[in-house]
Amino acid sequence: MKLLEMTGAPNPRRVRIFLAEKGVEVPLVQVDMRQGEHKTPAFLKKNPSGKIPVLELDDGTCIAESVAICRYFEALHPEPNLFGAPPVEAARIEMTNRQLEFELLASVGTAWRNGPIVAAMAAGRFTQIPEAKTQGEDAARAYYVRLDAELAQQPFVAGERFTVADITALVTVDFATNLVELKPDDELTDLWRWHAEVSARPSADA
Amino acid sequence: MKLLEMTGAPNPRRVRIFLAEKGVEVPLVQVDMRQGEHKTPAFLKKNPSGKIPVLELDDGTCIAESVAICRYFEALHPEPNLFGAPPVEAARIEMTNRQLEFELLASVGTAWRNGPIVAAMAAGRFTQIPEAKTQGEDAARAYYVRLDAELAQQPFVAGERFTVADITALVTVDFATNLVELKPDDELTDLWRWHAEVSARPSADA
Repeated sequence: MKLLEMTGAPNPRRVRIFLAEKGVEVPLVQVDMRQGEHKTPAFLKKNPSGKIPVLELDDGTCIAESVAICRYFEALHPEPNLFGAPPVEAARIEMTNRQLEFELLASVGTAWRNGPIVAAMAAGRFTQIPEAKTQGEDAARAYYVRLDAELAQQPFVAGERFTVADITALVTVDFATNLVELKPDDELTDLWRWHAEVSARPSADA
Repeated sequence: MKLLEMTGAPNPRRVRIFLAEKGVEVPLVQVDMRQGEHKTPAFLKKNPSGKIPVLELDDGTCIAESVAICRYFEALHPEPNLFGAPPVEAARIEMTNRQLEFELLASVGTAWRNGPIVAAMAAGRFTQIPEAKTQGEDAARAYYVRLDAELAQQPFVAGERFTVADITALVTVDFATNLVELKPDDELTDLWRWHAEVSARPSADA
């Protein structure tokens, strides 16, 4: 198998960190999104959504979507458990991961998509909307405040232990900080306490 | 346990259909979103995201997010299987379900959020963006064409059998058709063949 991905893009990093936590090595193949490789007919056959990462199995089966890929590896390599084991724990991790994706990562993505770095890529492909950028920024900042309050009550984003939801949150905060000018405020001290801890794990370098 | 939900809203219907497929009955409690009940302090304690549905367990534990709730019931009542069993099948169902959510349901939601029915609710709470409505509509229509092509090759959206991804697709198409003026074109005959079949299942009335 091999993972089609791109260094520097947030979603592939989620899978790389997940694999590092599992101690699993998978060959990485770069897809050059800046050259539009993810929109070529050859790539769209692998993933009609035109997005990375994609896990390509030896029989040619392709699995897109970071969380679908991570769940696949969770099934093959159950330990350390990252998606939860008892049904209630698994449900709360799934809930947290999805809220982070739909409310924080999607908002940061909206700010990114309508922001300056994407402007050149967008030209002729889609119209950037300044007001949507503002809404994305506002929603992300509101979620940071919520996250900070939750991290004052528990060590990790979904509770007492490190899970896939921490990977989503870490990658999102780093993406927002480094590429979208949406760094969480310094006063969110519980968020930054958590960020320092999860960033210190060896997997964060993946 | 009880399910906090609202008749007529798309996401709670996903859970109701899922429960009907499982043959599980859960007491339903209406949350009046038109009166803003989902933004009250009492509700936000149950789900800080201020969204329905929420499954409230007897010990007070609350699980938000439709798919997290469905996974919880899949764990408690494994048959009929709706999330996939072998890891590759489960990964492909998860991929399909997530692509439907992020690329179709989210696009329909953007058109809805920036459309006429929400205008009165939005007043004073957020700014509607006409251009975002257009982008949501265009993205949804493009996804319908993809879905039609996929349904020409396989009976259900994730392959050979009915899964949670069909529930997501059915609820999204019905929401788009009935409330967002985004009915798929009549010429998408494979999509409509599938729609007629899944709509004929008793669970579709849930």
